[in-house]
Amino acid sequence: MIKEIQIEQLKGVFSPVITPFNPDLSVDYKKLIHQCEWLISQEVGLAVFGTNSEANSLSVDEKIFLLDKLVEYGIDPNKLMPGTGCCALSDTIKLTKHAVKLGCSGVLMLPPFYYKAVSDDGLLEYFSNVIDSVNDDRLRIYLYHIPPIAMVGISLQLIEKLLKRYPRYVAGIKDSSGDWSNTQNMLDEKWDNFSIFAGSESFLLKTMQNGGAGCISATANINPKKIFDVYKYWKKSDSIDMQEELNVLRNIVQSYPLIPALKCIVSHFCKDKTWNILRPPLTGLNLSDSKKLIKELNAINFNLIKSN
Amino acid sequence: MIKEIQIEQLKGVFSPVITPFNPDLSVDYKKLIHQCEWLISQEVGLAVFGTNSEANSLSVDEKIFLLDKLVEYGIDPNKLMPGTGCCALSDTIKLTKHAVKLGCSGVLMLPPFYYKAVSDDGLLEYFSNVIDSVNDDRLRIYLYHIPPIAMVGISLQLIEKLLKRYPRYVAGIKDSSGDWSNTQNMLDEKWDNFSIFAGSESFLLKTMQNGGAGCISATANINPKKIFDVYKYWKKSDSIDMQEELNVLRNIVQSYPLIPALKCIVSHFCKDKTWNILRPPLTGLNLSDSKKLIKELNAINFNLIKSN
Repeated sequence: MIKEIQIEQLKGVFSPVITPFNPDLSVDYKKLIHQCEWLISQEVGLAVFGTNSEANSLSVDEKIFLLDKLVEYGIDPNKLMPGTGCCALSDTIKLTKHAVKLGCSGVLMLPPFYYKAVSDDGLLEYFSNVIDSVNDDRLRIYLYHIPPIAMVGISLQLIEKLLKRYPRYVAGIKDSSGDWSNTQNMLDEKWDNFSIFAGSESFLLKTMQNGGAGCISATANINPKKIFDVYKYWKKSDSIDMQEELNVLRNIVQSYPLIPALKCIVSHFCKDKTWNILRPPLTGLNLSDSKKLIKELNAINFNLIKSN
Repeated sequence: MIKEIQIEQLKGVFSPVITPFNPDLSVDYKKLIHQCEWLISQEVGLAVFGTNSEANSLSVDEKIFLLDKLVEYGIDPNKLMPGTGCCALSDTIKLTKHAVKLGCSGVLMLPPFYYKAVSDDGLLEYFSNVIDSVNDDRLRIYLYHIPPIAMVGISLQLIEKLLKRYPRYVAGIKDSSGDWSNTQNMLDEKWDNFSIFAGSESFLLKTMQNGGAGCISATANINPKKIFDVYKYWKKSDSIDMQEELNVLRNIVQSYPLIPALKCIVSHFCKDKTWNILRPPLTGLNLSDSKKLIKELNAINFNLIKSN
């Protein structure tokens, strides 16, 4: 008899949690715990180790250490959807296994991104290998489609094939293509038990109106509550205005390099200079851009009030 | 008093050694040792963990294990120029430290390749951090410029800055841009103690004629001796014909996906099916392409005679 494990499909607003570094470039895990706690208090789930977490500048061992610390501290693993997709199959298996063992309710999985122009069949074999090797009924994979950065994407045909082979394990996707027609095409498929997340809040209302599951957005690090409100109240008559308000902030922030801009904002409003540290090859905003960004935010009366 | 360590600038022909896998996708390290031994017998150095070694499908721990096995078995570390550049700074430091500790005469270093459109200053900080953290006088970095795959390249300005800051540690470059004018521009700079390697034997003669150090080429896995001969005898009057002969083979092989084609060739001529195993997301040539490739090679009387 097959033991049935009930795991909820994830939905809502998730944030690729920005990663705080110490001046020696090690991760300040205590500050990461604070950021996670605060996001949970704002009803936002934790897509730690996303692109905007500088996850690809962290080793697998560093990510395992951080996951352990988060759970050890008491962060509910049900709120965790860590990024576990690496270039190397062996790394992806190791990290994913660990995340599932800790009870994370899902993992966000990049395709292997070094080799370009790989075939759908090759990617199918890759994901199949990960699923077979992790070999755990609790595994739920949310695919991560971000061709502008990974350069290797996840096609609708690949999703179809994966769902046919592993309906239980392939649970959804984050679409960070920036191309609404791609999200729309996926939503139109109405796949069973498959959560489609917009890659930023810019598409949140449209995603909800078309049967999507929410969004996973870097800006949730600085604007969690209002993003969550659009997710929660999308059926209300004023949701278009609420979405418009999200767009105003998002458009300002994304007119700068996104990760340095987010860190600059948190650093400024939390009066904590070390938030401005990025791990190379990424670098912080220069002084003139920092000033310009804060000025633009002040002009729309943006504020970020955090307890820590 | 600063202790002077004499380390030779590398030159000659190197091969990104293709990586043999077992049917369970683990690395067949014994077969890798054989391939390395054979390449050394053909006067070719070992750029293990290059792009064509499927290095980015291997974890750092797997690479450390393999380096240990090679050296333990007796492969001369002076012949080794392992690829050690990863996405994550911490991974690159760990692997590079290990390679230097084992006595490898150089390392071939990709820039961090996940985040795109990074600045030269960010890359400068990245490489500086690696050099400062490895903190070993024996470190010699050969930069790895392969924008068609890594999508993040190494500009002449960046090389200038690195040479100014670390003249002792930055020892050369492999140019796999496929753009001869880029190689020519670098050669024209005539930087001191800086070895410029062509990224394939197609540019070997031109590279030698212009003061370069040799080539690092995947095809050396199947055509080592003749490539070495062009390196050695480039001043001879028939070197143009020798180069032309290299080109004929190269052009056939690179009209297929390169890694599967090389493995198909080794598998066929060594009568060893397991050489045809690639680690996903890469896949082997299909049957019809395999047959076509072997037929084209037979037509030019190609043969690969190996003792193992």
